[in-house]
Order: sequence, then C-alpha cells, then structure tokens
Amino acid sequence: MSKDRLIYLPLGGAGEIGMNLYVYGYGPKDNERLIVVDLGVAFPDMDTTPGVDLIFPDISWLKDRRNQLDAIFITHAHEDHIGALGHLWSELGAPVYARNFTSKIARRKLEENGQSGPIVNVVSSWPDTTKVGPFEVSYLPVPHSIPESSALVIDTPKGRLIHSGDFKLDENPVVGEAFDHEMWQKVCSPGIRAFICDSTNVFSENEGRSESEVAPEIKKLIENCSEMVVATTFASNVARIKSIAEAAEEAGRSVCLMGRAMKRMIEVSLEAGILSDFPKLISPEDARAVPKRNLLLIVTGSQGERRAASAQLANGKYQGMALSAGDLFLFSSKTIPGNERGVIKIINQLSEKGVDVVDDSSGKYHVSGHANRPELSKIHEIVSPQFLLPMHGEHRHLREHIKLAEAKGISCLLASNGMMVDLSGNQLKVVDHVDTGRLYLDGTTKFGALDGIVRDRIKLAINGIILVNIIFDENDDMLGEPWCEIRGLPDVGQSDCNVIDVLEEDLSQYIGRSKPSVIQDDDKLEKDIKRIARQTALTEIGKKPEVSVIISRLT
Amino acid sequence: MSKDRLIYLPLGGAGEIGMNLYVYGYGPKDNERLIVVDLGVAFPDMDTTPGVDLIFPDISWLKDRRNQLDAIFITHAHEDHIGALGHLWSELGAPVYARNFTSKIARRKLEENGQSGPIVNVVSSWPDTTKVGPFEVSYLPVPHSIPESSALVIDTPKGRLIHSGDFKLDENPVVGEAFDHEMWQKVCSPGIRAFICDSTNVFSENEGRSESEVAPEIKKLIENCSEMVVATTFASNVARIKSIAEAAEEAGRSVCLMGRAMKRMIEVSLEAGILSDFPKLISPEDARAVPKRNLLLIVTGSQGERRAASAQLANGKYQGMALSAGDLFLFSSKTIPGNERGVIKIINQLSEKGVDVVDDSSGKYHVSGHANRPELSKIHEIVSPQFLLPMHGEHRHLREHIKLAEAKGISCLLASNGMMVDLSGNQLKVVDHVDTGRLYLDGTTKFGALDGIVRDRIKLAINGIILVNIIFDENDDMLGEPWCEIRGLPDVGQSDCNVIDVLEEDLSQYIGRSKPSVIQDDDKLEKDIKRIARQTALTEIGKKPEVSVIISRLT
Repeated sequence: MSKDRLIYLPLGGAGEIGMNLYVYGYGPKDNERLIVVDLGVAFPDMDTTPGVDLIFPDISWLKDRRNQLDAIFITHAHEDHIGALGHLWSELGAPVYARNFTSKIARRKLEENGQSGPIVNVVSSWPDTTKVGPFEVSYLPVPHSIPESSALVIDTPKGRLIHSGDFKLDENPVVGEAFDHEMWQKVCSPGIRAFICDSTNVFSENEGRSESEVAPEIKKLIENCSEMVVATTFASNVARIKSIAEAAEEAGRSVCLMGRAMKRMIEVSLEAGILSDFPKLISPEDARAVPKRNLLLIVTGSQGERRAASAQLANGKYQGMALSAGDLFLFSSKTIPGNERGVIKIINQLSEKGVDVVDDSSGKYHVSGHANRPELSKIHEIVSPQFLLPMHGEHRHLREHIKLAEAKGISCLLASNGMMVDLSGNQLKVVDHVDTGRLYLDGTTKFGALDGIVRDRIKLAINGIILVNIIFDENDDMLGEPWCEIRGLPDVGQSDCNVIDVLEEDLSQYIGRSKPSVIQDDDKLEKDIKRIARQTALTEIGKKPEVSVIISRLT
Repeated sequence: MSKDRLIYLPLGGAGEIGMNLYVYGYGPKDNERLIVVDLGVAFPDMDTTPGVDLIFPDISWLKDRRNQLDAIFITHAHEDHIGALGHLWSELGAPVYARNFTSKIARRKLEENGQSGPIVNVVSSWPDTTKVGPFEVSYLPVPHSIPESSALVIDTPKGRLIHSGDFKLDENPVVGEAFDHEMWQKVCSPGIRAFICDSTNVFSENEGRSESEVAPEIKKLIENCSEMVVATTFASNVARIKSIAEAAEEAGRSVCLMGRAMKRMIEVSLEAGILSDFPKLISPEDARAVPKRNLLLIVTGSQGERRAASAQLANGKYQGMALSAGDLFLFSSKTIPGNERGVIKIINQLSEKGVDVVDDSSGKYHVSGHANRPELSKIHEIVSPQFLLPMHGEHRHLREHIKLAEAKGISCLLASNGMMVDLSGNQLKVVDHVDTGRLYLDGTTKFGALDGIVRDRIKLAINGIILVNIIFDENDDMLGEPWCEIRGLPDVGQSDCNVIDVLEEDLSQYIGRSKPSVIQDDDKLEKDIKRIARQTALTEIGKKPEVSVIISRLT
C-alpha cells in the first residue's frame, strides 16, 4: 500500500486556454486507477487550422489505459470542458458524472454522436459524494458564467484535492448558487493536499465584478433607446440572458430569442428548473408585429460567427427581422482573441445601417466568469493548500499564477500538458512526460495535428498549385504536350503571356532534351518537372507554387 | 470660372484603417486638376488574403486621369501612407512631395522598385508652400509616432482645406515638433472651408497621453531588472526608441539595436538630423561580451512578425543573443487587432524560458500616436471648419467622429472610399461614386481582390483538393483506371479503406456504365466526375473537396 501513488496529469488545458482534460490517478505505479475531469474542445482558425471543424486533446494515453479508467467527471457545460464528450466517449467508455443541467447537455452531445443508454449519471452537490475506485468525488458549486458550474472535491487515500473548475467568487450571480464562503471553509478545514486552480484571469488586477452589476447598466441603456434593441451574449450565459430579458420587460419591451444555441440553453435551463420567473418570450413571427420601441431581441453570435444571428442581422434580414437607423445593438460580451475581425465587421455593417453599437469597451455591459487576481488570492487563502498546481491557462498565465501563490508561501509546480506529477510526497515531483497533442475533427475523420494534412492545406492557401499531366507512349515518347492547370494563381505573368502556356512550353522543352534514362525514371522525372514548374512560376509570377505531377505511361 | 468645382475623393483609408489614398481636385467637372495625398498599403492575413504580400488601393480611376494629376503629397512615412509609392508610382508618374525624413524613405521605396531620378521633392514646413496647378500646399507639422508627420494646408480657389494626416496634440513629443497651438490658430484664422480629419481614436474617451510620459515609466522598469532587458516597439517610432535608449544609458546599460527596419529608421533619422544626442549604440557582436545586467536590446517585431527579432529571440537565438530566466522583455507597443496570436505566442515562449514579460496592459509603456476623443474635440474647435469630413477609420469610426463634430454644430458628411464630394457649395454634396477596391501584390504580379484567385486559395485551404486524371483512347475506351491524388485530405475514411482507392473505384464504375454520348462530352464528363468525387469524399471523409479533372484523349 505504501507504494501507491497519487498522480495528476493534464492532457489538455494546461498551457493553453481550451480543450480541458485532466487526469487523476491513484494506485501502484503504472497501474493507477484513473478518473478524468472534463473532456473539452478548442476551436480552429484560418491561421493554423483551416477547414478543421473541432480540435480535441489527443487521448492515446488514456485509450491505452481504458481498463484503468473509472469515471469521467464534467465540471460544467462550456464547450472547452464538455465539447469532446460526444466525439471521444466511445473510445474511453467510462461512466460520466455531472450535475443536472450539465448532464442534460452531456446527453444531447452523446446522442448527437449516436451514443445512448445510461452513460451519464446525475449527481447532487456537496456534501453528496460519488465513490469511484479509490476516489470519492463531490461537486462543490461555484459561480461562473453558465449554470451549475462546480469545483470538484476529490478525496484520495493521500488526502483531499480541490479541482477548481472555472469559477469566480460572485456573491450574487443572478442565476444559481452564490459563492459560499462558509461551505468552502468547511470543505477545506481538514486540510487540502493540492489545489488545482483556474488561471484565466491572473493578469486582471482589478477586483472582479458581480454578474448582478450588469443588469442595472443594461436597463439604463435600454430605457434610453426609442427604437429596437438587439443584445447579444454567449448563448450559455443564462444569467446574462435573464438580466437582459428582465431589463427589457421592465422597460415594457417584448423579448424574442434568436439563434438555435441560445434557445436550447434556455430550454435546458427551464427543464432543469434553474430558471424561474423568466420573462415570457415571443416568437420571431409575433415579434414582427410588435412596434420596434417595444421590442428587444437577444441573439447569438457575440463572437462574430458568420452563420449566427448577429452576423445575419448585420448583413440583412434574419427570421424576418431587420435593423435600421436608430436601433441599438449591444454586445454584452467580450471578444475572445482571434475573433476581432468577425466582430468588427458586424459593427461596421451595423454602422452603415445607422445602428448605434455599444460594446464592452466601457466595462459596464459584461463581466468575466473567471476569478481575477484579487479573488485568486482570496481563494488561495480559503483553500490554503499544501500544493498549488495552476491550470486553465497558457504558459504565461500558469507562471504568473505560481508567482502569486508562491508569494504567499504555497508550494507550486508548473505542470503543462503531458507532465505527470506525483502528488503523494512532501514535494511535488514530475514523474513522467506523456506524449500529448491535438486531434483534428475534419468532416467525419479525425487526424493528428502533426499528420501534415493541415500543413498541406496551408501551403495550398499561401502558394497555390500547379497541376502537370504528362503521358508517354510505349516507346517513352510524349503524347502531345504536357498539360498544365493552375489553381489560386494569376493567369498572366511578367512576360504578359498566359502562365499555363509558358509552363507547358518550358516543360515540353525540358522533356524534349531529356535522356531516356530520365524519361524512364518516374521519381527523377517528377522531381525535375516540379523544379522546372516552380522555377518558371518564380520567373513569371514571383512565387513558387505547390506542384502535383501525374505521369501516365501507356503499356 | 464659376463652373469650376473643388472635389474630395477618398480611394483608400475612408471606411478602413490602412492603405490611405485621398484625392483633391479643382477645375471644370470631369476635368479637374488633381493632387493625391498619401499612397499607402494594407497588410494581408490568413483569413482573407492568404499568400498575398501587400494590399494596395485600386488606382484605376487615377490612372485614367494621369494627365490631370499634378502631384503626390506624402504626409508621413508610415506604411499605410507611403507603402504603395514604390509599387504604384510608375503608373501615375506625378512628382512626389514630402518633408526631409519622409523623402528619404520615399526615395528608398522608389529605388527598391527600380525608380530613380528626381521624383521626390523635399519641402519645408509652413509657411513655405508648394504651388501645383490650382493648389497651394503647405506642410503643417503635427506630432504623431514617426518623425516629421504633417497635416496639409491646401489652399484652393474655393478656400482653405486642412487634411490632418495622422496626428495627436502632444506638447512634448520627445522627437520633432510639439503641437503648436498658435501656429494652428494662425493657419486657421482666415477660415477653413473643410477639415478632413483622422478618426482612429474617436472611441478613446480618455485624454491622450504624451510620448514624454513613457520614458520615466520605462526607466523605473529597467532599473528594477538585474538581468538583460529587451524592449520592442514599432521600428518607426523613433521617439520611443530614443526614450528607451536614454533610459538604458541612464541605468548604465549599453544599447544594441536589432532588426533591419529599426536600424534603417535610426540611420535615416540621424542622416536627416532629426535625432541628436542619441546614445551610442553597440553591435550585436560587442553586445555578447557585455554582462547581461549592463545590456539592453531594442528589437523589431512588436506585432509578433514571424521573422522579426522578437519572434526569433523568443524561439531561440538571434545574432548570437539569447534570453534566459530573469531577463525582462518589454512590449512598448500595442498589439494591432489581428496580430494577437503572434504576440501571445512570443509571450508564452518567453514565459517558458522564465523571462518576465511586461506589455502595455497597464497603460504605462505605450502611448498612441493618434488624437483621442477629447483632442479631436479640441482640434475641431481650433480649426473651426465650415465642413468636416472624417477619414482614417472604419465606418464605425467615421460615423462616431461625425456625431462628435455635429454635436458642436459642424456640418459633416460621411464619405467613404469611392464617394466623390463637391466641397465648393454651401452644402457638402456627393457628386459621384467611383469604383474602388483592393489590388493584391502577390509575388511579382498584381491582381484585383475580386479576381477570384485568392478566393480559390481559401477554398483549397478549407476543402483540400482531389486531382483526377483519366485517359481515353481513340475509341473512347478508358486506358487503365482513373488516377486520383489528394492534397490536404486524410488518406483513410469511414470504410477504413484508402480514400484514393475508393475514389478510383467509384469513378471507374461510373465511367464503365456511362453512355458514349457522356464519355465524348468533355464538359458533361468533367461535371459528373466532380460530382461523384465530391459525393464519394462526403461519404468517406465527411467533406466536399475541390476537384480538378484532367481528361486526356489519344487521337
């Protein structure tokens, strides 16, 4: 028994913001019983992952240890914590645990991927616990920006761990449980071996603001508008949607929700009994008959997503509704880095329509769901752990979080994805480095980030492509001329001739003067053709495209 | 004479931030004498312009009126005002005017593009004027973030115009002329017909800060570091470079500049006599011998540019220098929207090395070069124009700028790119809409944004491509099998078979059962092959790639 060890292994989310996946284990070395906390996704972008649909953490290590895995715990229903569940669960197969609201989202995700049956177990919050293998796990409610977020209290034979999940210390979160100082103190009173803690807002120096501070500001804004108001926020921020809807109702406006994701979140919240007294909603059809000054739309697409309601409204009509001069459009959200262009495009399109746009630059219409630096300090004090391991952050966040905690004398370790840490001893120790990486969902296939497929696409986008087709007869004589096509390249180059003509001419000349030994050697010939096509392109259009060569030989 | 009109026509920069190009004209309708103010570029990105090198405004309208064009005035040497000069000048051919520092940059740009000879004329500042056609133009110094920025005073038979250029109201800009309130009042005292004014920072509510406020903060920072300090800023911000170098010198540190663009800017500033008392610089070779605590590097790459000094230092070594734990890296710059990912990557790489990174989030280590909202109000009052036309901004900036000016009773018009405005009358009037657009420099060719070339590249990046090669003999019998290749796509799909095998099999079957009338019809056959290849791909890998089909027929 004394040889058993308690390990922590982040496979996603430590060293990046997104695709959270943390593993805890207890038992004999290399034969620990394991539990997984969260199974999230990251989102692709044109710079690094064009055409990719979703990004998952690489779960090879877990798959190889599937028989050691006892459970998957989901802390809350944000995509970066639950988004991979439907796609990866079948490869892991362990029972899933979540609170009521989260469980409903989890089940939908599994069903969308053809997984049904009793996979997801609904758990109550602390002091209820779930015993799995050597662990007892309890859900400790925390305020965040989606209902029923929770930290996990993980009791192990080596002591109690707290995995914070995503959290803030809001004492008036509008929807769901407020931060319960006393409950946390009680939970932490036996002493906490290790605190694995959210690092997202460690660089935010100011005291965090409560969700409840947003509503009065939004109310003022709505009251000052004499035409239609359209507000967008994150579809999962049910508290915000409630605040906006109530402010609208108080201002005598009917509320209409637009966008599938938002409607679904409100439905699930109502089903789960989380939302009470939610203002009556009207349909887009009915909304069209309401005078603009009596109407407020709450819409999806706060990040400028091209197909969401915001972008469509900015572009023209959506479900029969259109914006016009004098209307007010509110971004009750922050723009996640990388999404600036999409959001700015919407703002300018609205500006062209004469719509007034209010965003969060004043700091009044949005609050973060994560603990700022002062709240991180506070929770460090409350938890007062022996060890702290920062998670949910890029390297810079984790490092800064450690500086903050170490200044208070807490012993820390920066464990990024793939670093297995032994939590059993008197000191934190990295005991293994596990290969980690990213898995891309692309259409219906999954492949590794390092498989070169996406790299090839990026090359195509930057360089364009030349296709070369050459046919030789039985005597190794070329039939006709080389046939070239181009994609993503200009037709005419420096010599004012058609680029394709110049390519075909140059290749034809090359083949004409090549020895039979070259003509007969597919590899050599292909290499030479690529070189010549690139050189011709460089001369003509100043860049070296990708080249695909198909050599056909009649036999 | 009464039929002569005074026109303003933005061709770039009004409705976007970047590629500034403004035209003023005076004379009979459609036969005005013209002058151009600025000839700038915009920068490409992976989202919308993969592989493109630079973006220019479309100058077709100007080229068609080349014989009406009397001069090109450059307000300052930032790329978005001067960057297209070397590339487009030969198509316009008019003499270029600029102040001394700017003229040196202008000449280099022309020379780099093979243009020499007496093209660029150096002008002195107000009250000196340059007479071109019906215009008299004078350079009115304004503080900005590059030496010798100027507003233009444009005297016309219909009165005086002021084109602000990029400016702020700094009374202590460290390098170059302070904002001269009295001079501006004198210039404006005869009355200003129209003020064409920078809108960049109209949403910045706080009073703008002086360049001189940065140095003391940087000095404190440097003094608190006991290892090497590396600072990055915009290469053209000579005042900032001077502030940093002086702070280093006062802290007993030797200063080494790294990065070609920065060295060039300092060289030109010294040549132009703009910089005096600039601290002595040491070479990278000598820097290696200096103890780290006595060294400060000022480096390029504040926007995360992959090949610049910052990125290379974050990645490993640059010119023999490397960063290590305890060093301090300062971004004395703001991150331009769209560049976040590159900058964040550098910060995380530095974090992994144990380097402390300080950026501008505290607001202490960078100030903007543009007038904030309060300074815009102030300049409106000083200039007190009959008309105001906002420029240098996206639609949302222009619209907000108008709100600000109209609240003071100034008559405004929102003229975005392509809108020709008649400034002659008692009211501003849009008299024409000119086709405008963007021209892409791609390698050595230029093509229009709407030519579809870049759109094709984006499709390649998102969808990947299938190449299909089919050969028919004289009797329309297929020789062998269809030959497929793929790029940017996974090899194996749903059926666990090689995707290429499945494609070839499906296409082979299709051709086997096709009628001669289809086989003989290239267009029909190609269309069908594309459809089938896409359908097979959709079934196998869940996405519809681009398809290129080459059909060869032996005759």
